[in-house]
Amino acid sequence: MSQNPSPRQIVQQQLPKQAQPGPQASAFAPSNIALCKYWGKRDKALNLPINPSLSVSLGQLGSRTELSPIDGAEDRVILNGEVQSLEGGFAAKVVSFLDLFRQPGSPRLQVDTHNNIPTAAGLASSASGFAALMLAVDKLYNFGLSPEQLSAFARLGSGSASRSIFEGFVEWQMGVRDDGMDSHARPLAQSWPNFRIGLLTLTSAAKSVGSRAGMQRTVDTAHLYQSWPLQAAADLERIHQAIEQQDFELLGATAEQNALSMHATMIASWPPLLYWQPESVAAMQQVWALREQGLPLYFTMDAGPNLKLLFQGQDQQAVLKAFPSLQVVAPFEAA
Amino acid sequence: MSQNPSPRQIVQQQLPKQAQPGPQASAFAPSNIALCKYWGKRDKALNLPINPSLSVSLGQLGSRTELSPIDGAEDRVILNGEVQSLEGGFAAKVVSFLDLFRQPGSPRLQVDTHNNIPTAAGLASSASGFAALMLAVDKLYNFGLSPEQLSAFARLGSGSASRSIFEGFVEWQMGVRDDGMDSHARPLAQSWPNFRIGLLTLTSAAKSVGSRAGMQRTVDTAHLYQSWPLQAAADLERIHQAIEQQDFELLGATAEQNALSMHATMIASWPPLLYWQPESVAAMQQVWALREQGLPLYFTMDAGPNLKLLFQGQDQQAVLKAFPSLQVVAPFEAA
Repeated sequence: MSQNPSPRQIVQQQLPKQAQPGPQASAFAPSNIALCKYWGKRDKALNLPINPSLSVSLGQLGSRTELSPIDGAEDRVILNGEVQSLEGGFAAKVVSFLDLFRQPGSPRLQVDTHNNIPTAAGLASSASGFAALMLAVDKLYNFGLSPEQLSAFARLGSGSASRSIFEGFVEWQMGVRDDGMDSHARPLAQSWPNFRIGLLTLTSAAKSVGSRAGMQRTVDTAHLYQSWPLQAAADLERIHQAIEQQDFELLGATAEQNALSMHATMIASWPPLLYWQPESVAAMQQVWALREQGLPLYFTMDAGPNLKLLFQGQDQQAVLKAFPSLQVVAPFEAA
Repeated sequence: MSQNPSPRQIVQQQLPKQAQPGPQASAFAPSNIALCKYWGKRDKALNLPINPSLSVSLGQLGSRTELSPIDGAEDRVILNGEVQSLEGGFAAKVVSFLDLFRQPGSPRLQVDTHNNIPTAAGLASSASGFAALMLAVDKLYNFGLSPEQLSAFARLGSGSASRSIFEGFVEWQMGVRDDGMDSHARPLAQSWPNFRIGLLTLTSAAKSVGSRAGMQRTVDTAHLYQSWPLQAAADLERIHQAIEQQDFELLGATAEQNALSMHATMIASWPPLLYWQPESVAAMQQVWALREQGLPLYFTMDAGPNLKLLFQGQDQQAVLKAFPSLQVVAPFEAA
């Protein structure tokens, strides 16, 4: 891995020379929920995945980012109206990401990001955040990058940001190249108008282990992780088939087993990594009970305690009756 | 598998000819808790496992079974004082097991079994039950079977019964023979006087899927199960090492990861197999919080919602303070 080019080298050799920032640029990118999860990296510096993944973007839910050059020696990062410390966390990652694209001496930037995602629902804001940032950078410097480049570069900020560049169903192909330029997402042609996602917020307790660290612990310590790439490959095939045939039960069952298998690899890690809360188990049991009663209702979960329900438009009332606080997203319907 | 000898053929060719039952025989066998779990069969008729396992027997907790010949055309099975229907469940398995050892025309038997195990704690009574039954059969007919034969034959009633033939730490070697006669348990020489097991009863709700069916579903549907035999082999090594060196933290950590990995294979099955209740997650979180505070406390779980805590005698008061309803077993101390 040490012989691989650095992220900055990879980016710089694809940018036009001497790009100067315009006065301002703004872009939006949607959040996305993976039906076949990204879990495990083959290259940590470049966020290259061990398996391909497939997601659905959340339409109007996501991040809007505005960039503008500023005077001074430091960038200025504002998240949901609050100026962030550059010492760590989100702002430090944003500055590192901007540095991939800048020449020394290029002006510092103000990054003003607003997420309209319910933070407590555990939706990864880094995916939409870095995708929106990438789109805004491309506009600000007028780089004219291709969709594939935008996706591959967004990946350098956060793996799943590669998928948030696009709308609808999106596949992130894992790629084989050392520089990762073939590890980018692409949108699928298919639409599914009555597909629904329900965001179920069970708890807003902060995660004790972030998903980046959790992913690494799983890869390093869970014997069962060795079977994960095989599972993901099989699930990806099935999800493609389900989308092709608009077979909702195949889609739901595959996505649910995929998510539970990902959590299984965490549970099999050491120290054990259990993102579930007691409320998570109760909600799963409720979904299974409703399904036993004939309701085609499935769920997926990311590295957190909350469930994302998967169902069809014709069942929305029944699902809302069981989960009154559910926030429903129709990813394929215009707002 | 169809060319293999049947369970009855295997048993009959090893029994002395024309054995007649005595007037009465009684035997006790302990329950056991696996530190490295038995999960998956390579032969369903003979209960031959996919992986070796290692348990600790629970001393005075277990099953006592009394056998006596009776007149009539049918066996009579009494469990904890209640006559059982022969139509299914436990009694039908007992009759099938007795038939392995009997000649046609041999008298029917009364089987009177008492378990002193707290049923709600989810301890498998089939392990101690079939081990006690095997020991009583051997006495009743005066077969004079070897410990290895007793263990291998008890396995035909219930896989983990092979381990309940012995006290203390017990390893069930998986064996390689088609007739399974090398797939029996053996006791380890080591003792560990301050080793403690705490039975934590969280819920007595009946399991919706029995462990025999659950095991099969996992083998058939969980991709991650493919890595389980590797995990079990590594864990068995580590547990042997921990017992050899009386390294409690190594023992506890290995047993806990082993149990969680087994549950992980269930969670990755389809339909999902989750034996946990919300209370199970809360109890796990409590164990992890106590461990973070420095208490060497671990747990294991079988195919059910309850936890079995693992700790040392010197920490018993601290553990009881956190879990006041805990039933503590000292497997290596005389009653």
